[in-house]
Amino acid sequence: MSKPSVLVVGSGGVGTIAALSLTLNEKCNVTLVVRSAFDKASTEGFTINSVTYGNLKNWKPTHVSKSVESAVAENGPFDYIVVTTKNIPDGPLPCEQIIKPAVVDGVNTVVLIQNGIGIEEPMIKAYPKNPVLSGISLIGSTNINCTVDNLHKDTLKLGPFHNPNILDELTMEKVREFALLYQNVSKDVNEVIIEDSALSSRWEKLVYNMVLNTTCTVAGLDVNRCQIGEANENIFRPAMNEVLAIAKSEGVELPDLTSDYFIHIGDGLFYSPSMLVDSRKKQLFELEVILGNPLRTASKNGVSTPVLSTLYGLLKMIQLRIKEEIGVVQINEADYKGINSDDYPKTFQELQSKKV
Amino acid sequence: MSKPSVLVVGSGGVGTIAALSLTLNEKCNVTLVVRSAFDKASTEGFTINSVTYGNLKNWKPTHVSKSVESAVAENGPFDYIVVTTKNIPDGPLPCEQIIKPAVVDGVNTVVLIQNGIGIEEPMIKAYPKNPVLSGISLIGSTNINCTVDNLHKDTLKLGPFHNPNILDELTMEKVREFALLYQNVSKDVNEVIIEDSALSSRWEKLVYNMVLNTTCTVAGLDVNRCQIGEANENIFRPAMNEVLAIAKSEGVELPDLTSDYFIHIGDGLFYSPSMLVDSRKKQLFELEVILGNPLRTASKNGVSTPVLSTLYGLLKMIQLRIKEEIGVVQINEADYKGINSDDYPKTFQELQSKKV
Repeated sequence: MSKPSVLVVGSGGVGTIAALSLTLNEKCNVTLVVRSAFDKASTEGFTINSVTYGNLKNWKPTHVSKSVESAVAENGPFDYIVVTTKNIPDGPLPCEQIIKPAVVDGVNTVVLIQNGIGIEEPMIKAYPKNPVLSGISLIGSTNINCTVDNLHKDTLKLGPFHNPNILDELTMEKVREFALLYQNVSKDVNEVIIEDSALSSRWEKLVYNMVLNTTCTVAGLDVNRCQIGEANENIFRPAMNEVLAIAKSEGVELPDLTSDYFIHIGDGLFYSPSMLVDSRKKQLFELEVILGNPLRTASKNGVSTPVLSTLYGLLKMIQLRIKEEIGVVQINEADYKGINSDDYPKTFQELQSKKV
Repeated sequence: MSKPSVLVVGSGGVGTIAALSLTLNEKCNVTLVVRSAFDKASTEGFTINSVTYGNLKNWKPTHVSKSVESAVAENGPFDYIVVTTKNIPDGPLPCEQIIKPAVVDGVNTVVLIQNGIGIEEPMIKAYPKNPVLSGISLIGSTNINCTVDNLHKDTLKLGPFHNPNILDELTMEKVREFALLYQNVSKDVNEVIIEDSALSSRWEKLVYNMVLNTTCTVAGLDVNRCQIGEANENIFRPAMNEVLAIAKSEGVELPDLTSDYFIHIGDGLFYSPSMLVDSRKKQLFELEVILGNPLRTASKNGVSTPVLSTLYGLLKMIQLRIKEEIGVVQINEADYKGINSDDYPKTFQELQSKKV
């Protein structure tokens, strides 16, 4: 029986290390999609500085492809499609569109190693017969121009997303199978933690991401500078209390100490969260999966979230500003003369498709 | 009897037009303090394009001084000290310090033509025996490099600030006297409206300034782009409802329609409020008098303000960012190692004076 084949889409810090781990374990054939840095990655390969897998020069996965299309042509079909890109449903290319060329109805399993909640919904809607797995990466890894720095032991929490069209047991089988592909023979190297449900781990990570990521982005400041600006009491604590309340309304009871843990996790480190890094580079950030989806859950469950909702309203405007700056939307001021501001077009789709 | 003498401190759009009005009326001697543009203002003078006072070339007030100190030396003492600078109590030079060289205990009257509430308090504390008047300018005026564009009829609402050390009737006399100096013989030119109390007019203006100024600054977007980003429902209305509730707790009943009026006042105009303009120029903005003082009133009166308090928390961080960028505060990251973020120094004074 031939080895399973795995496609990794997204070659940032998390995706490249995932491809590395899967390659080193030699239990599957790995194809990594590298878009902008394809020429360098396919000739010189990557420089890896990893506390998990050691330091490597000129490392290359089994296959490197320039796009999902060419990956399919060169090595498809794939048993697993691992998605490690940023997840921006309000951007021009949602994840389910990115992987579309590789999806074979009912055949491949999709593994979303990404932040946020509700990320499985558009996948299941687009590909109702394909199992979708949840991966939560605890790694601390960056990739700058094919040099990957991995600071923490690669730990992957793996679990099933519920899909009403697929038996949960079948999805769980895929979880166990993919865990074997990813887990090194020695637990001292990396660690895959299998969970029956992704919910609790995802909400725990949201306590940080919904609050510190978002506040730093709005303020344009790293975590510690926000704290010098009195963020702990003014924003972080009240906003984290709201996250805990939403999680509770979903049946996830996180300890009260979770807030204190995340507030102090970076004391003195002057760390810039990923959303702030993206916004500084004028890149779209993961607003909907980190903040929008949880707030829709809050609204559905009747949980009051004035602080988070204000942050969300502001970040929508900041995301719109970036969209205009990078040309994803165009705002022609003359088109808005004589229109009541309550009737301005509101959605990305409207702004793209409709001349007001 | 010689004419009263008036010192105007602050030569922006409002201050220069105030000096112009007072000069044209010929009922007082006017000294205008012009700091950075002193050389140009004192030789070529100003270019005035005013719907109120017409178009003038090379216009100069009776006297132009480079600083408050030299104004005093050249023309002091003054009967009136008109303050039209930005009001930034959390900055390096609060207004009561700026005018200090010109104040003679119990002699001059201070006229604050500025935004916000609580602006009289530091003045009365510093100069308990000097009457302080409230001026609210409705004018629409900018001064860019000695060219002043005034778009709306110069209308000045003038009233007393209550000072427990001075008879209200004496302050009111000063209101009427200064109104005569400022009011042109024809009401068709400019208009001074005398009010028994500044409170209602100040709160009305705050409905706009506390909400649109602040939101636009946080988002980095003009009013209409915020509205394209769904600000009307997500931020503007809920925040304005909070302003109306604070005003009500102070006995000021503003009509519910006030919100709609201010939300739609700029439909289609793509206007950037002053606070946004300041922040884009990396200048400190009027955070405390526009947002901090009203929120302290809300807290005192037990009014819930989650949206405004979130905006305030975020703007404090943004103001801190600007302070660091322009060198008003220094943050040395190494000083913060090993310190609990709850114990970081919190105030501007601490940041300036205390090595953490």
